Amino acid sequence: MTETTSAVLIGKKPVMNYVLACITFFHGGAKQVSIKARGRSICRAIDVAEVLRQRFLPDVKIKSIGIGTDQFLPIDQDENTQSATNVSTIEITLTR
Amino acid sequence: MTETTSAVLIGKKPVMNYVLACITFFHGGAKQVSIKARGRSICRAIDVAEVLRQRFLPDVKIKSIGIGTDQFLPIDQDENTQSATNVSTIEITLTR
Repeated sequence: MTETTSAVLIGKKPVMNYVLACITFFHGGAKQVSIKARGRSICRAIDVAEVLRQRFLPDVKIKSIGIGTDQFLPIDQDENTQSATNVSTIEITLTR
Repeated sequence: MTETTSAVLIGKKPVMNYVLACITFFHGGAKQVSIKARGRSICRAIDVAEVLRQRFLPDVKIKSIGIGTDQFLPIDQDENTQSATNVSTIEITLTR
């Protein structure tokens, strides 16, 4: 396997910034690009994948979508009654 | 195939409401429950699936995750310069 997987981490920037990042990776020869997001950025990750496929690179296919949970332990235990905060994550792997 | 697929549509209510809806379906004998969401509710859909699996029904597996786009045509054409509004969708199919 000589597959190159590049990762795009989704944050608070506009959707098009991340779409452009994906396009750059694919044009740079990447065969696989994985879009990763956490919490509220998850919707943006889906938007990125959809805009990319529908508008810019129709030959890009969704290889897999995985979801998971990241646990955060609070530094100050008194701040929160819960021992850990759970944040959902998503990883969309796109292939060309 | 005698599979029963029930659908839970995710809206603006708290995550636990939808988790409870899924539990009710599974306890009612459903073998498959699909969680559907659109736009900003997508993050909540992931949360529902994760809370359900991690906390309540660990035997529930993610069968598939599909993403797509719904197009909306504005009633008043002058209201929007774009001809259509695109909204991302997600469908998470859970099996027991």
